[in-house]
Amino acid sequence: MLRKSICTVLVLIASTALVLSVNAQQHPNLILTQEGVKKIRDNLGSVPLFDQTVNKVKQEIDAEIASGIHTPIPKDFSGGYTHFRHKRNFIVAQQAGVLYQILQDDKYAEYVRDILFQYEAMYKNLPLHPQERSYARGKLFWQCLNDSNWLVYMSQAYDTIYDFLSDAERSTLENNLFRPFADFISLENPAFYNRVHNHSTWGNAAVSMIGLVMNDEALIQRALFGIEDDGLKVGGIDNDGGTIKVKDQKRGFLANLEEPFSPDGYYTEGPYYRRYAMYPFLIFALGMHNAKPELKVMEHKDGVLLKAVDALLNLSDADGEFFPLNDGQKGMSYYTPSMVTSVNVAYHYGEQDPQLLSIAAVQNKVLLDQSGLSVAMALREGKASPFMKSSVNLSDGPNGDQGGVAILRQGNEDLTMVLKYAAQGLSHGHYDKLSFSLYEKGEEIIQDYGLVRFVNIGQKGGGNYLKENTTWAKSTIAHSTLSQNQQLHFEGDYKTGSKHASQLHFYDDTRDDIHIVSATEVNAYPGTKMYRTMALINNKDFEKPFLLDIMKVTSETSNNYDFPYHYMGQIIDMNFEYETSSTLAPMGDKNGYQHLYTEAKGAAAADTTQFSWLNAGKYYTLSSATNTSDEVLLTRLGANDPNFNLRRDPAIVLRRNNSDNTVFALIIEPHGSYSPVTELSLNSSSNIKSISVVYDDDSYTGV
Amino acid sequence: MLRKSICTVLVLIASTALVLSVNAQQHPNLILTQEGVKKIRDNLGSVPLFDQTVNKVKQEIDAEIASGIHTPIPKDFSGGYTHFRHKRNFIVAQQAGVLYQILQDDKYAEYVRDILFQYEAMYKNLPLHPQERSYARGKLFWQCLNDSNWLVYMSQAYDTIYDFLSDAERSTLENNLFRPFADFISLENPAFYNRVHNHSTWGNAAVSMIGLVMNDEALIQRALFGIEDDGLKVGGIDNDGGTIKVKDQKRGFLANLEEPFSPDGYYTEGPYYRRYAMYPFLIFALGMHNAKPELKVMEHKDGVLLKAVDALLNLSDADGEFFPLNDGQKGMSYYTPSMVTSVNVAYHYGEQDPQLLSIAAVQNKVLLDQSGLSVAMALREGKASPFMKSSVNLSDGPNGDQGGVAILRQGNEDLTMVLKYAAQGLSHGHYDKLSFSLYEKGEEIIQDYGLVRFVNIGQKGGGNYLKENTTWAKSTIAHSTLSQNQQLHFEGDYKTGSKHASQLHFYDDTRDDIHIVSATEVNAYPGTKMYRTMALINNKDFEKPFLLDIMKVTSETSNNYDFPYHYMGQIIDMNFEYETSSTLAPMGDKNGYQHLYTEAKGAAAADTTQFSWLNAGKYYTLSSATNTSDEVLLTRLGANDPNFNLRRDPAIVLRRNNSDNTVFALIIEPHGSYSPVTELSLNSSSNIKSISVVYDDDSYTGV
Repeated sequence: MLRKSICTVLVLIASTALVLSVNAQQHPNLILTQEGVKKIRDNLGSVPLFDQTVNKVKQEIDAEIASGIHTPIPKDFSGGYTHFRHKRNFIVAQQAGVLYQILQDDKYAEYVRDILFQYEAMYKNLPLHPQERSYARGKLFWQCLNDSNWLVYMSQAYDTIYDFLSDAERSTLENNLFRPFADFISLENPAFYNRVHNHSTWGNAAVSMIGLVMNDEALIQRALFGIEDDGLKVGGIDNDGGTIKVKDQKRGFLANLEEPFSPDGYYTEGPYYRRYAMYPFLIFALGMHNAKPELKVMEHKDGVLLKAVDALLNLSDADGEFFPLNDGQKGMSYYTPSMVTSVNVAYHYGEQDPQLLSIAAVQNKVLLDQSGLSVAMALREGKASPFMKSSVNLSDGPNGDQGGVAILRQGNEDLTMVLKYAAQGLSHGHYDKLSFSLYEKGEEIIQDYGLVRFVNIGQKGGGNYLKENTTWAKSTIAHSTLSQNQQLHFEGDYKTGSKHASQLHFYDDTRDDIHIVSATEVNAYPGTKMYRTMALINNKDFEKPFLLDIMKVTSETSNNYDFPYHYMGQIIDMNFEYETSSTLAPMGDKNGYQHLYTEAKGAAAADTTQFSWLNAGKYYTLSSATNTSDEVLLTRLGANDPNFNLRRDPAIVLRRNNSDNTVFALIIEPHGSYSPVTELSLNSSSNIKSISVVYDDDSYTGV
Repeated sequence: MLRKSICTVLVLIASTALVLSVNAQQHPNLILTQEGVKKIRDNLGSVPLFDQTVNKVKQEIDAEIASGIHTPIPKDFSGGYTHFRHKRNFIVAQQAGVLYQILQDDKYAEYVRDILFQYEAMYKNLPLHPQERSYARGKLFWQCLNDSNWLVYMSQAYDTIYDFLSDAERSTLENNLFRPFADFISLENPAFYNRVHNHSTWGNAAVSMIGLVMNDEALIQRALFGIEDDGLKVGGIDNDGGTIKVKDQKRGFLANLEEPFSPDGYYTEGPYYRRYAMYPFLIFALGMHNAKPELKVMEHKDGVLLKAVDALLNLSDADGEFFPLNDGQKGMSYYTPSMVTSVNVAYHYGEQDPQLLSIAAVQNKVLLDQSGLSVAMALREGKASPFMKSSVNLSDGPNGDQGGVAILRQGNEDLTMVLKYAAQGLSHGHYDKLSFSLYEKGEEIIQDYGLVRFVNIGQKGGGNYLKENTTWAKSTIAHSTLSQNQQLHFEGDYKTGSKHASQLHFYDDTRDDIHIVSATEVNAYPGTKMYRTMALINNKDFEKPFLLDIMKVTSETSNNYDFPYHYMGQIIDMNFEYETSSTLAPMGDKNGYQHLYTEAKGAAAADTTQFSWLNAGKYYTLSSATNTSDEVLLTRLGANDPNFNLRRDPAIVLRRNNSDNTVFALIIEPHGSYSPVTELSLNSSSNIKSISVVYDDDSYTGV
């Protein structure tokens, strides 16, 4: 099916060459269009959110113009000055170009021109960036990825002042700057450019966009389909441990659109990377839509690009923060600029879903193009309706058959449970099959740790992934799922993990009172099968919805099982005996255990083990069916962390040794509240007396 | 002076007995007055914030009436059901009484009557509360303190329905409930009632208020002047370690007004307790003002009660949260109900300061009495102006000569430094002479730990002070001040500590660019003198204001000094070598050190030791003049904490061994920002290259 669609595209390209060259003579033609600019100018001053955004951008750009143009010799990692400055330059140039089109004030065009020529003067003789850590070093930045960012934005800037420049100026820029730049990030860096990876998406988008502005068919082809013969051998490892070239390597933008997106619009690397890659995907598609509408890139794979916007908005908590699955940095949210692009484009080029407008309203800014104008005009006309997030099950894998992510929600995001039963997630994946996280509104109750990286903070390893990202964040015990014999899922082997995905058993959100998902994992520990069933239950005898969690394990061998819950908050109460020690030692020496201290160790209660905590003014109780041979460990992160890269977060671990088949059955129950202002403590005790497994065979488990 | 004012009061009382009895026949006459109620009724429906509060309270009370009256047999500590229910009852009864007066609907009066008679039926045969922990057990609650709360509110409730009841009903209530209740908390519990302590203030207020409603002169006298012969021996210890009876014990409400308040309105126990005691002080004063205006209780000690409201509002961060000096629970703020009382009363009975209105506006509710009406009407008329907090120095001690608390502020609370050089602070005091805390807006940068107690959370020791409050929170090392030889200030002896206060050296906030305070402590460690000078400096070469901290120590002996900074946040960078160990052991075995783990230990840099961290999206760098014989320790709280009562908070400790005279000179510099949404890291490095002590003699230290 993939093969077929590529053939169709090729035919279309051949038959539309003439149309292309005509389109290409009009500028802007990439993101802004001549028609769009006209409409914007006609409406200027009468669309509040659009005008407000124009004024804000104008203030910023005027201040930049006043401060002069700075193109320092590249030197720093992300987090350092030269990195920051060059990044700022391309954003500023793109925005100044837009202002030129909207306000028709030549000073903005002159400013963009001067920036571009300053780069033209520098780039000709620029060596590789002096920082040598990247598998694909850039010139302006330490990695080609950031150089590609630069070109994606500068292409737009160039497009906006194309007609302002003389033929000679354009010729100089194209020959000395843009073409060499595009060749450098593609032909000279195929390891970066020729993969299915978010890096390559940026590379493809960069080459495509400058190709569209310059009407360079060769570059456009290279963007869509990659480099035919890249000379790379199969194998190779990038900085994140991802394989650079696999057998039958797919490449080019369309492959990047095919492969990582499921038909539901889930992006296999996870929402944090989806948010990052959103911009090049959409901006590429938009450029193609405007310059080559007949290719229908926007509609490719049943409109997956716009579906992905909706999927991504659903992959956020009540505060709009994305679930930090895989290597996700916490705090990233739909307030980030690329999500303004996503929401505006999805509204304008999609089906004008009024729910998107309510997101645009809280973002409180719009794109300065025809899509942003659409959104701002619709908001002015009061068309917005609330964005309702309900339970949703998103398949993973190009064909939707590599597991997925289920998000159960009760109430108005009062309780949200995220079960990850997906594929490995490329090089940013973690070894956490059937792990989950839990939120009450925007507060994490059971956390996914996310990544160990301080993005753009130079003092922290140049802002790059830190060692503990591998030794802790990717480990199985770092997640709320089953660890067997203190081993990693798939023994932590990326290739093995990449071969398998968990599978959906069933999913049902049709009943109001019970939303339920069940998934299985049979490859993480060969010979052991895990079946996890999770339900959010709304029961009239309970103050709030609660989570029922049943992990059924069957194994051919006898094992030691650890079942951790990475809760957030302050311990309030427990019903089991435990001991603490005044010195702390790590729990193990590898697989993440080396980072955990045992703060307390006890024997589980005979029937139901209960553990309560307080977080952000709300109480929670975990009630687990246990017997006295079960152990309970209270742990604290932070051992073997010489650079203080890890948070000192707690967990409770249920430990069941020497078992083959077993069932963990638990309830996590939010209840009550505490206010430090009124000092009222309400309903601080669990409503659950006992939980036990009353029936268990091959087909049914009763709790 | 105190003696004299009491005499004056006595004379006044004698000469106004007739007037009193006339006033006493009109009800309500305590907080609400007949005139006030008339004005409220006249304005009902035309004062938005007042009407909104009435509607909100009406909804609450109607729901309570629908749920019936519940007076369970007393059983629980705070945090348990019976505690909660009886507390709720007195609040509900007081509010229902107010609604009766305002809305003139008999159902509210009947409801209050039925509640009171249910208590009347129960109280006659009620034994002491079964929980035996308190030094002064109550009957409805585990301590007389809460029983007094009950009577303060129920007196108001009774006042509002006084005229609704028959003579016989009043007689039954007074003889079986109110008089025995008042006698129990006073005559039968002199250890509780006859002190200078916030407990006694509640007791005095309770007795006074029921006395005013019943026009019982004996009770009013007992409230104003205490019990003449209480039969107690000097000595005795309450639950918090406070002495029950001292030599020449002062007693009664007026003594409680004299003793703990400084002329500046600072309350020696600290803002958290001031906020708690605010209600009985004001409500007592108000009752006296309305029933016995000629006593001028409100104007007592140069109007200290209303001054104290202003002082208390100044003892809060930019979010309105009180500095947790001494045993303060974090999160308590001017949004708490007693502060609504304070602000409303201070506005109406004080000088109608329009700045108070802006606090009332964010509180978003008012008292349902004449003062609340005043505030709501003034807000309706747009009279509010912003409450401006600037630097302020508040003296401690009845005569203002027992040290104090200085609050330095730069910008619009951009940086706030709180230096505590006060008296011991009665039984809630900590051993932390010359300690400080630092805030950027409402975020803690250098924290005061506050207390170890989970107020009203039954599972945590009945909501009472926990063992770690003494072993950690009160300790010297728990605070950012000098620890000598790992000992507590005053050897942790309450009596010794209570004899001494630190002394102000100088204070100056007249220059815009430098606000500075200097104070000395010569008794905490006999033979050792500490001079701490702290300045908030606004310098054009710095992005933000910064803190300069100079602690000069002179001693007759050679000592080991620890100088900790209890910073909040994530470590970003350090410029010194250190070692970490994979196991953690406590730093010591007593005086708070037993609760600290050493996470890292290093030798200070030769010249300037720097340490950076990130908190809530802002960077901070501590730069300290050091030499290589200094040690630096990074610590983590949580050792020897078997019940998980302590937070796992970090600190950095500068250690200088075998020194007599020395100077610690440091700068804490806020800089830059980080956003997880834009991932922009700005100005993440310190602007300071070096700090050193360039001159030091008896008179001057140069940095």
